[in-house]
Amino acid sequence: GEHYIIAAQRVIEDAVDHGVCIQAECWVCLSLTLHIVKFTNWVITHHLSVSPRFLLQINCVTFPLPGEGPEQQLLKPDEWSYCDYFWADRKDPQCTTSVTGFEVLLQKQLKGKQLQKEMAEFIHERIKIEEEYAKNLSKLSLSPLAAQEEGTLGEAWTQLKKSLHDEAEVHLKFSNKLHTEVEKPLLTFRGDNFKKDLKKYDHHIADLRKQLASRYASVEKARKALADRQKDLEVKTQQLEIKLSNKTEEDIKKARRKSTQAGDDLMRCVDLYNQTQSKWFEEMVTTSMELEKLEVERIEWIQQHLRQYTTLRHETDMFNQSMVEPVDQLLQNVDPAKDRELWVKENKTGDVRPVDMDI
Amino acid sequence: GEHYIIAAQRVIEDAVDHGVCIQAECWVCLSLTLHIVKFTNWVITHHLSVSPRFLLQINCVTFPLPGEGPEQQLLKPDEWSYCDYFWADRKDPQCTTSVTGFEVLLQKQLKGKQLQKEMAEFIHERIKIEEEYAKNLSKLSLSPLAAQEEGTLGEAWTQLKKSLHDEAEVHLKFSNKLHTEVEKPLLTFRGDNFKKDLKKYDHHIADLRKQLASRYASVEKARKALADRQKDLEVKTQQLEIKLSNKTEEDIKKARRKSTQAGDDLMRCVDLYNQTQSKWFEEMVTTSMELEKLEVERIEWIQQHLRQYTTLRHETDMFNQSMVEPVDQLLQNVDPAKDRELWVKENKTGDVRPVDMDI
Repeated sequence: GEHYIIAAQRVIEDAVDHGVCIQAECWVCLSLTLHIVKFTNWVITHHLSVSPRFLLQINCVTFPLPGEGPEQQLLKPDEWSYCDYFWADRKDPQCTTSVTGFEVLLQKQLKGKQLQKEMAEFIHERIKIEEEYAKNLSKLSLSPLAAQEEGTLGEAWTQLKKSLHDEAEVHLKFSNKLHTEVEKPLLTFRGDNFKKDLKKYDHHIADLRKQLASRYASVEKARKALADRQKDLEVKTQQLEIKLSNKTEEDIKKARRKSTQAGDDLMRCVDLYNQTQSKWFEEMVTTSMELEKLEVERIEWIQQHLRQYTTLRHETDMFNQSMVEPVDQLLQNVDPAKDRELWVKENKTGDVRPVDMDI
Repeated sequence: GEHYIIAAQRVIEDAVDHGVCIQAECWVCLSLTLHIVKFTNWVITHHLSVSPRFLLQINCVTFPLPGEGPEQQLLKPDEWSYCDYFWADRKDPQCTTSVTGFEVLLQKQLKGKQLQKEMAEFIHERIKIEEEYAKNLSKLSLSPLAAQEEGTLGEAWTQLKKSLHDEAEVHLKFSNKLHTEVEKPLLTFRGDNFKKDLKKYDHHIADLRKQLASRYASVEKARKALADRQKDLEVKTQQLEIKLSNKTEEDIKKARRKSTQAGDDLMRCVDLYNQTQSKWFEEMVTTSMELEKLEVERIEWIQQHLRQYTTLRHETDMFNQSMVEPVDQLLQNVDPAKDRELWVKENKTGDVRPVDMDI
């Protein structure tokens, strides 16, 4: 607590007075309190020619304080990689809980699964619209309207009506392909196992954080024990100096031994903590990279299948256009003279012209 | 009647015996009876080197008999023109009435009006189908499905959804143009006046036929009167030869005068008949040509407007295809790295990596 801050302050003041460069051994471990800000400012304003590394724990994870010191380089510069940006927990503004950076990454993948399902649903709706349209066109193509038109004009009209059925077939084909090449894949991409795999990652990382919290508690406990032992030693030493008690040197040696032991305990706890944090760190890097890869694959897969959608749309419009061509052809062949010939041959009443009556 | 047939037969037999060429003056007018067939056959089998013109009246119109003689050349050869093929009446097999060739032509035009209306109805149905399709696509384009997709993939998806609305607009435009450029014209082409005009033609030609029938009745009446007069003269002449009666030459002169007068009456009636038939003939040629022209115009007009239909179909499919292009463009721009950058910038929790705890 404050004790340490004051002690640190004094060490540094001393070093400054003596022009001494403070080495790594002088790292001071501080808990996160309001004093840190004050202290940091003090360090900065005094332009210390030191490289102090001040640390803070947030939710049992140890971070360096921002400020002068060796800047951390991104693990994967210019890549905006997951492994570089999700170390801290995010505090939920609406409540007191916080969510880990990893959970943010995980939620994104789960969200992605939901989005692909919604896309499939959208495609399904399009399929229904196409089937309805095809059904209507097909029905209309069977209409007997103007079926009595004859000759080349009648043929063109008949083909025009038929072309609606051809168009219907094109749209039906489109909707079938939409189903097999876009909708169904969107529904089945990353099946149920995907969520299970994500859950496994989730639990694994969460377990490591729990372990880390547990190790951190041990460190705090050992730190407190050391503080107690040191205070005891100090008191006993002072008492010896002012001959306040009957304590013998034996007692001081014992107190000193216990203090040393407490110090060793603390170091062991810190070691274990650091090992666990390293393990968590490794898993974070590995797993976040895995999630990053999954996201790239997801985007590329969806891109590919949406391109399949647009390809089908192109094809459909082209096929649809070609359905009009036979109609165009027959319309071009419409020949009133031909139609007159056909009709007259069929319907003529008599080609012998009347002549004058004579006696 | 039979009297004439026998008389004609005898004249021709005589001529044949004497190797005489029978001139125009010897045209014999015969009523339509079974004898005609027998007679025609007789004429044909005897390979007469004559040009007999035997006539027959059907429904008061006078036609030359088929057979050897100057062939009638078509008024408009190789054109299958209405004016060449609709002279006779057509007998309705189901009843005793007959329908004129002209009525057949008229019915065709009236039928054409009905057919254009049916075509308009068909186009109307297509319009309804297009509007339904457009409505459905538009509605689906507003769907919030997968709206939470972000970055370049989200943009592509958003454009994909929007493209449905663009397609809907294309189809709506198509249906609107179908209405103004095809349906409406088909409905209004040849308005109500058309039927009225046709009715006028109908009545005019029918009136001329009625007049012709009336003139024909007069001819028959005059012919009978002549026959009576001639019989009377013959009887009176015979009676004179065998001195059967007290008839004086006066009576015979009177009978002969009446006979001559009856002959003149007949010739006048035949003249009037021929004038009326000529008038009807002219009107038939003129009006049937008019109907022929109307039919050519009808076919060409419909051809033109059905081509407008196919043009609109072509356009629609082309516009529709182009609606996919912005989607293609955005899909091409889908960039997982970019999306990661955007998302990470927005959602990162902290880029400071944990460090070892130290005392």
